Amino acid sequence: MDSTATESTETNSTGTTGSLTRLLDGRWAEVRDRARGFELRHFDPPSYELGTEEHRARVLDRLREFAASGLPQVGFDPAYGGTGDVGGGMVAMEMLGFRDLSLMVKSGVQWGLFAGAIAALGTERHRQAYLRDAIDLDLLGCFAMTESGHGSDVQSLETTATYRPETEEFEIHSPTASARKEYIGNAARDGRVAVVFAQLITGAESHGVHALLVPIRDELGQPLPGVTIGDCGRKAGLNGVDNGRISFDRVRVPRDALLDRYGQVAADGTYTSSIKSSGRRFFTMIGTLVRGRVSVAGAAQNAAKLALTIAGRHGLARRQFPRPGREEEEVVLLDYRAHQRRLLPALARTYALSLAQNALLEDLHEHLTAPAADPADQDQRQRELESRAAGLKAASTWHATRTIQVCREACGGAGYLAENVLPQLRADIDVFATFEGDNTVLLQLVGKGLLTDYSTQFEDLDIRGVARFVADQFVGFATERTVNRGVLERLRRRRGEQPEIRDRAWQLAQLEDREKHLIETAALRLRGRMAGDADPFDAFNAVQPHLLTAASAHVERQVTEAFLAGIDTCPEQADLLDLLCDLHVLSGMEADRAWYLEHNRISDRRAKEIVKAVDDLCEQLRPHVPELLAGFGIPDPWITAPIAQ
Amino acid sequence: MDSTATESTETNSTGTTGSLTRLLDGRWAEVRDRARGFELRHFDPPSYELGTEEHRARVLDRLREFAASGLPQVGFDPAYGGTGDVGGGMVAMEMLGFRDLSLMVKSGVQWGLFAGAIAALGTERHRQAYLRDAIDLDLLGCFAMTESGHGSDVQSLETTATYRPETEEFEIHSPTASARKEYIGNAARDGRVAVVFAQLITGAESHGVHALLVPIRDELGQPLPGVTIGDCGRKAGLNGVDNGRISFDRVRVPRDALLDRYGQVAADGTYTSSIKSSGRRFFTMIGTLVRGRVSVAGAAQNAAKLALTIAGRHGLARRQFPRPGREEEEVVLLDYRAHQRRLLPALARTYALSLAQNALLEDLHEHLTAPAADPADQDQRQRELESRAAGLKAASTWHATRTIQVCREACGGAGYLAENVLPQLRADIDVFATFEGDNTVLLQLVGKGLLTDYSTQFEDLDIRGVARFVADQFVGFATERTVNRGVLERLRRRRGEQPEIRDRAWQLAQLEDREKHLIETAALRLRGRMAGDADPFDAFNAVQPHLLTAASAHVERQVTEAFLAGIDTCPEQADLLDLLCDLHVLSGMEADRAWYLEHNRISDRRAKEIVKAVDDLCEQLRPHVPELLAGFGIPDPWITAPIAQ
Repeated sequence: MDSTATESTETNSTGTTGSLTRLLDGRWAEVRDRARGFELRHFDPPSYELGTEEHRARVLDRLREFAASGLPQVGFDPAYGGTGDVGGGMVAMEMLGFRDLSLMVKSGVQWGLFAGAIAALGTERHRQAYLRDAIDLDLLGCFAMTESGHGSDVQSLETTATYRPETEEFEIHSPTASARKEYIGNAARDGRVAVVFAQLITGAESHGVHALLVPIRDELGQPLPGVTIGDCGRKAGLNGVDNGRISFDRVRVPRDALLDRYGQVAADGTYTSSIKSSGRRFFTMIGTLVRGRVSVAGAAQNAAKLALTIAGRHGLARRQFPRPGREEEEVVLLDYRAHQRRLLPALARTYALSLAQNALLEDLHEHLTAPAADPADQDQRQRELESRAAGLKAASTWHATRTIQVCREACGGAGYLAENVLPQLRADIDVFATFEGDNTVLLQLVGKGLLTDYSTQFEDLDIRGVARFVADQFVGFATERTVNRGVLERLRRRRGEQPEIRDRAWQLAQLEDREKHLIETAALRLRGRMAGDADPFDAFNAVQPHLLTAASAHVERQVTEAFLAGIDTCPEQADLLDLLCDLHVLSGMEADRAWYLEHNRISDRRAKEIVKAVDDLCEQLRPHVPELLAGFGIPDPWITAPIAQ
Repeated sequence: MDSTATESTETNSTGTTGSLTRLLDGRWAEVRDRARGFELRHFDPPSYELGTEEHRARVLDRLREFAASGLPQVGFDPAYGGTGDVGGGMVAMEMLGFRDLSLMVKSGVQWGLFAGAIAALGTERHRQAYLRDAIDLDLLGCFAMTESGHGSDVQSLETTATYRPETEEFEIHSPTASARKEYIGNAARDGRVAVVFAQLITGAESHGVHALLVPIRDELGQPLPGVTIGDCGRKAGLNGVDNGRISFDRVRVPRDALLDRYGQVAADGTYTSSIKSSGRRFFTMIGTLVRGRVSVAGAAQNAAKLALTIAGRHGLARRQFPRPGREEEEVVLLDYRAHQRRLLPALARTYALSLAQNALLEDLHEHLTAPAADPADQDQRQRELESRAAGLKAASTWHATRTIQVCREACGGAGYLAENVLPQLRADIDVFATFEGDNTVLLQLVGKGLLTDYSTQFEDLDIRGVARFVADQFVGFATERTVNRGVLERLRRRRGEQPEIRDRAWQLAQLEDREKHLIETAALRLRGRMAGDADPFDAFNAVQPHLLTAASAHVERQVTEAFLAGIDTCPEQADLLDLLCDLHVLSGMEADRAWYLEHNRISDRRAKEIVKAVDDLCEQLRPHVPELLAGFGIPDPWITAPIAQ
C-alpha cells in the first residue's frame, strides 16, 4: 500500500470524523466540549525543565485554574456548588489525561479522594463544615490511607484512632515505623488537613478501619504538633504532585472528626454501625470511592490516545529507506507491516476500552443517581460495578503504559526527546498500574467476584473464605452477556456473510467460552486442593495465575461487548468500526491463541488464519488512520509535540 | 513454601556464591574486579535532583574519573596508552551498566565511537595526531552519523563532503534541513571535534558514505564558523549526556581530515579504495565499530541485574496480606506465585544472556586479535559475529527494558520513587532499544544474514537484493549448533533420566527445529511472492514480521546453547544452573507455545505440561533467589536503593 497523498489528522467537527468523535464523546459530550475550551496557562519553560518545587508550584496554579473553570465541581451536590452530575464529574477528570497527568492526579487527590471522602463517608455536619472549602480549594487536603507497611492490604493498617471519653477526643497514633502514611498526595507541600484511615478503638475494642479528618499543618504551612511530615522527593514521573509521608504521635482530634456515616462513636465511647461485619463495613466505605478509580481508567485511556496521535502522525509523515523498485522514493513508516502491527491493534483496543468506559460511566451514574428500590439489588449492582471498575482500571492502565511505550519506540530517537511529549506521558502513566488499587490485586478482586457470583458474603471473604465458598457452593458459571440479542442481530444482518472468524457470533462465543472455562477450572482446581489437607494459602497461591487469567478473560469479553454495542449506535461509521472491532478481537485472540489451541478451541489452521486476518486488517485500516486519530477529538493546540505537527 | 529465616543477598566471595560470580565474570574477571574497585565520587545531591546542565557537568567529571582509572584505555593499542585487550575494553564499558548509564553512554560516545572511529577508520597519521588525546580526554569528540531525516538508513545520509582540489580541502555541507546531524552525544556541550559521516564527492562522482574529522568548536567552546550547534534538550533519561544537533554550511577541512583507511582521495581528487562496491565498503567501515554495540548489550544486561537485585531483595523482605490459616503472619511477596512468575523467568534469562554475551566477547576478541589466515574466512567470520552482536544487542536491550519495568512494578509505589533507583534505570535504558542500531532493524539484519547464509554479497544486498538472492539461490537452512556434542553428553549423563520436556536434547531439538522452519518458510514465502509479478517492497513487507520472528528464534537458540556451554564449565553449581536453564528454556517455550501448537510441534497436553513445569521451577528456584542475586557480583555499596537494604 502506498500513501503519497497529504494526509491530515486534524480534528474535523463535521462529516464522518465528527461521528467517531460523537461516539467516543458519548453521553457527556457537553462536559467534554467544556473541557476542550479549558485553557491551561504557564507553558514556559515546559514542565519537564522545571525542578521539583517549581513543577509543584505550577501544578498548584493549574489546579486553581481548573477549579475556576467550574469543571471539577460538576460531580458534587448542588448544595455545595456542584451540579450533581456524577458521570460528568468523572468525565471532567478523565479529560485531564489529554493535558497534564500531574494535574489529573492532584485533582483526583483533592476532589476525588479528599472532598469525595468528606462527601461519601461524612455526614451532613462534615459536609456543611468542609465540603465547599474543599471543592473551591480554600482547604487543600490529603487522603492518608496507604502506609509504609501496607499498601494493597488496607484492612491491616496499623495507625490507630483511640477514643478518649474523658475529653471526647480521638488520639491518632502511628505505633510503628511501618504505620507511617506513605506516598500521600498533597502531603509534602500543600495539604492542610488529611482524611486519615486508622483502626478505630473504643474501650478495648477495635472496630476496623475508619476515616477521620485530622489537621496536619497550621496557617503558615508548618506541621502541627505531633505531626511529622516527610517528602517522597523525586519520582519517576508526576513530579508536579507533592507526595509525602505523615506520621502521628498521639495527635488529639475532637470526636466529630470521625467521618461517621457508616460507624458512630457516642460521647461515652459506645460504637454503633448499621453494618455489623467490620469487613463488610470497610468495603462499603471503600466502595463509595469507586469514582476515583473510574476517572483514573479514563485518564489513562486519554493519555494513550494522545500518544497514538503523536506516533500516528509521525508514522504518516516520516519516511525511511528507499522503496525497492522505486528508489527515488522513501517508504512512509506506517506502510511497513511491522510498524502497522505496533500501532494499529493498540488503536483498535483504545476504541474498545473507551466504549467500555462510557458504558461503565453511564451505568455507574444511573446506579448512584437512581438507586434500585430493593437495597439487596442495589448492593448486588454496587458489587458488580465495583468489579467492572476494577477490571477496566487494570486493563486501561496496563494498555496505556504499553501503548505509550510502543509509541515512543515507534518514534525512534525523536520519541525519547522531552519536547515530543511521549517521555513525560510514559513516566507519568507508569504508576497508574499501581495506585488506586494495584492492578494485580484488582484483577484478583474481579476473580473472587466471579468465583463467588458477587454473593452477599463477598466483602467478608478473605482468601480462605473464597476457597471455602468455592468448595461449598460453586456449581458453575453462567456468562452474563451485556450486549443484547437485538444488537447482535442488527450487526450480523448489516455485515452479511463473513468468514467464520469474522462472524460476531463466533467471536463472542469464543470469548464467552474461554471466560467460562477459565473460571470453572479455577474453581475446580481450588476445590480440588481444598478437598485435600492443603494449607489454604498454598491452595490459593497455586491457582492465583489461573484466576488472574480468568479475570482478564472476563474483562476482555465485557470490553468487546461494549465495542459491539457502540457500533450499533454509530451507523454512519459502522463499516470502519466493524473492521476496527475485528482487529481488536482477532489481535486479542492472536495474543491468546496458545490457550485456544491447547484447549482445542481452534485448529492450528484456524490459528494461522487469525494471524493472517490481523495482517489483512492492518492493511485495510491503514488508509483510515488519519480519521481514526481525528476521532479521538483532541484539540490541535493540545498536540504540542514537534514531530506531530 | 515459607521463608521466615533471614535471607541475605550480600556478595560472598567464597563458596558456592563465588562460583556463580566466577562463571558470570568469565574470562575478563580481572577487568571486572578492577571495575569493582573503581569509586565514583559526587553523589550529593543525587543525580535525579540535578537540572540538565548540572547533571551534564557531573557526568563529565565522572568521565574524567573513569579515564583516570585506566579502565577505558584497556581496549586500545599499547602505542596509544592501552593494553590491547579488546575483550577487556568492552567489559570495562559493560561494568558501567551497574553504576551510571549516562556515564556509560558518554563513555561509549567518547571511547567507543569517537576514539574507536579514529582507530578503526583512520590511518597511522590520524592515530598519531589524535588518538592519545581522545583516549585521555584532552580531545572530546562526537560521532556525527544520524541525521534528522536518516537514522536507521545510514546509506542515505544527505550531508556531503565535496573535494575541492584547488585548495586540497573537503567542503562539509548540510544541503537540507533533514541533513542536520541529530541526537549526537557530546555535541550540545563538550565536543570539540566530530567524526562526520557524509557522502564523499570528488569531481562529479559520489563514492558513498565516508567519515571525516571536523572541528566544531574553538578553544572557548564556541561553534566554529559555518557550524551551527543545537541542543536536543531534556530527554526521557540519560540527561547526563549532552545530545545535540549539528549542521554545516560549507565548512572547509583539509584533505587529511578524511579517515581514509578504506577509501583515499589523492591531491588531484582521484578516489581509490581496495573495496570496489560502495555498499560493501560502507558496511566494512560500520563493521569495525561493532564493539560499541556489544558493550551496549552488556551494559543493558548489567542494568537488568541491578534492577533484579533491588526488586529481588524487596520481594524477599516485604510482606503483604495475612497468611490464611496463620493470620498473625504476613506473606513474603516472593512467596506469591504471581510474584515469582514476574521475577524468576527474568532472572533465568539474565543468566542466559550474560553467558551468551561472554561467549560473544571471547569470539570477537579472538577474531580481532588472531585473524584467520584466509581473508575470506575472516570476512565470513566478521559477518557472523556482526550478526550475533546485532541479535544479542536487540535481545539484551529489550530484555533489560522489560525486566526493569517488571522490577519497578514488583516494588509497587516504592519502585516509583527516585531514591529506589529503578526510575532512573528505566528512563535511561529505554533508548537502548533504539540507539546503536534500532532493534527491529538489527533483527532484520540477522534475518537477512540467515536467508543469505552470510554470503559474500551480503553487504550489498538491499531488500530487493535479498529477495532476488533468495529466489535464485536459497536451498534450505542448516542450523549450526554452537554447543558441542561433548557438552550435551556430559550434561545429559549428569542429569540422568528426566521427563522429556526437561531433556536437553529435546529442548534443543525444539529450538533448532523452530528456527529452521521459520527461516525456510520465510524464504519460501518470499520466493513465492517474487515468482509472481509482485512489487519487491510489497513482497518483503508481507514477510517482514515472519522474518523478524525467525531472527528472534535464531538468537534464542544461540543464547540457550551458550547457557548450556556455561553450565558445563561450572560443575560446582551445575544443579542450580540446570534448574535455571530449564526455567529459561521452558518459560521461553511457554511464551511461544502458540507457535509450537499451531505447527504441531507439541500436543495440547504437552503445552499444559510446560506451563506446569514453569510453575514448579519457580517454586524450586524460590529458595535460591538470594544466591542467584549474589551471583551477579554487584558490590553492596553500589546497591543504594533504600528498599534493597
